[in-house]
Amino acid sequence: MTSLAMIEAAATRLQGHIRRTPLLGSPFLDEIAGRRILVKAENLQHTGSFKARGGWAALSAMDKATLKRGVIAYSSGNHAQGIARAAAHHGAPATILMPSDSPRIKIENTRALGAEVVLYDRAVQDREKIGGDLARDRNLTLVKPFDNEQVIAGQGTCGFEIADQAKALRVEQAEVLVNCGGGGLTSGIALALEARAPKMVVRPCEPVGYDDTARSLISGRIECNEATTGSICDAILTPSPGTLTFPIIKRLCGPGLVVPEADALRAMALAFSRLKIVLEPGGAISLAAALFHGDQISTDTVIVVATGGNVDPCVFAQALETLDA
Amino acid sequence: MTSLAMIEAAATRLQGHIRRTPLLGSPFLDEIAGRRILVKAENLQHTGSFKARGGWAALSAMDKATLKRGVIAYSSGNHAQGIARAAAHHGAPATILMPSDSPRIKIENTRALGAEVVLYDRAVQDREKIGGDLARDRNLTLVKPFDNEQVIAGQGTCGFEIADQAKALRVEQAEVLVNCGGGGLTSGIALALEARAPKMVVRPCEPVGYDDTARSLISGRIECNEATTGSICDAILTPSPGTLTFPIIKRLCGPGLVVPEADALRAMALAFSRLKIVLEPGGAISLAAALFHGDQISTDTVIVVATGGNVDPCVFAQALETLDA
Repeated sequence: MTSLAMIEAAATRLQGHIRRTPLLGSPFLDEIAGRRILVKAENLQHTGSFKARGGWAALSAMDKATLKRGVIAYSSGNHAQGIARAAAHHGAPATILMPSDSPRIKIENTRALGAEVVLYDRAVQDREKIGGDLARDRNLTLVKPFDNEQVIAGQGTCGFEIADQAKALRVEQAEVLVNCGGGGLTSGIALALEARAPKMVVRPCEPVGYDDTARSLISGRIECNEATTGSICDAILTPSPGTLTFPIIKRLCGPGLVVPEADALRAMALAFSRLKIVLEPGGAISLAAALFHGDQISTDTVIVVATGGNVDPCVFAQALETLDA
Repeated sequence: MTSLAMIEAAATRLQGHIRRTPLLGSPFLDEIAGRRILVKAENLQHTGSFKARGGWAALSAMDKATLKRGVIAYSSGNHAQGIARAAAHHGAPATILMPSDSPRIKIENTRALGAEVVLYDRAVQDREKIGGDLARDRNLTLVKPFDNEQVIAGQGTCGFEIADQAKALRVEQAEVLVNCGGGGLTSGIALALEARAPKMVVRPCEPVGYDDTARSLISGRIECNEATTGSICDAILTPSPGTLTFPIIKRLCGPGLVVPEADALRAMALAFSRLKIVLEPGGAISLAAALFHGDQISTDTVIVVATGGNVDPCVFAQALETLDA
């Protein structure tokens, strides 16, 4: 179980290797939302997403012999890049199992960061099986994308920054909207804020049709998605919340927010024109919730974690087209 | 003449009202450039450009009676927004004279920030004359976009941040590439670095055909551009360096870098894919110089000031198209 002390230790190990990303905002976005929106721009993190935190936290916690044997990860691309970057720095060979329909930029970047990429078909092949076989054959250590104590601790460091940055703005009370796949970031931030900003409440955000966490929070047990393909929000399409992450989410988070993916494109366009940042669809669901579904939010200030920006240009161009509508 | 003390005083007045923008980088950009590139992301500044600094510095230095009468500014859009934002906060009515061919987003934002926008034809009308007439008729104080001591001091605060942030990365020696129109930012940063990072050298960057500052540095006196329209780099199309800014630039800066505007589009595309930030063409000339004209740069690390991100979606889409080439 990830503890506050583990997040604090991860924050120390991450120092100098991970960016303290800015908390942005715009009066134009506030006007649309009818409340103040503060955007934690994790798209500006190394590798273009918060996953660089968890990857670094996991590898920097390993002993030298483990690192030397190498690591394996499965990921649609953001965890892949986070692991690849941390592995290159720690001298660990990295094998990354990626869905063949991942955005091209994510596959290319993962390779360019020095990892070996193995592609699989997300619709018909079982990544756990392929990953398990590869790990055994090559004697590699598997770093799961969210169900890993150190990964959760690494993502939690983002919560420390949110607490500090909000405090500097004298914001105590806020709902904190987090794009949620398996729940590593959601649970990590929730743990960090429980200690450092206890009046804040984390709300997991998911696209319509992939609302496993929202439904799990309602039923009180881990629910699954029917599909894990078919959405532009590739970064957060996981089968279900994790066995490590869900108990934390259940204990600490407010109800999930479920948003049509078309709203993510509109949010990307507004992030472009108002914040001058690049978001990927799965990184913009939280902003979409704040901008277009404010009736489900209760605080005067809402903090939006913009989790990633690894988007292919054609999808981004599609988002820009919503500006003229 | 802007002094170090004036920049220090401006930094104090700007505290809490202006963002400390991050210094970004990417191994992928370093590889293209063949050296380390650090990008000061002033596109993430309030109003989407560094001009928010100078606008705030100028208005916060005015007495109450002056503010109450109101201010006037002429600008292609970034100075306009900087002044409009500062004026709204200081309770000063703002009249902004803008070229009718300014990007739509800049005109709309300036209005939305509460200023009255007066449009003129940049090719045939003289903005100094129209501005002068309006100022006289309405008893307004003109805030020039660069030839104003307090504006230069405000832009100089960006140089203080660069000095601090580079020091934290143990970077002492670097050329600092600044997109240069009239030279307010260029001269302000040069003054700040002279005091705080004396081994750094500022290099003004301009698009081909609008290289008034580069030519002025060669001839030693103020040279003019033949045209101030016809480039996508609207933010930095000024007739000539200023009478206040040029002496500072001449004393402190290295030779100008002159870059084809098509390279700015390629740099915007790489800033999109590698840094996850939105730059406008006139805000990306410096990055283009670092990426594609490195033969003219002599330091191992180059600091690029990415000055603004106020770009219409159609121009941005055009930049993205260069990625598939």
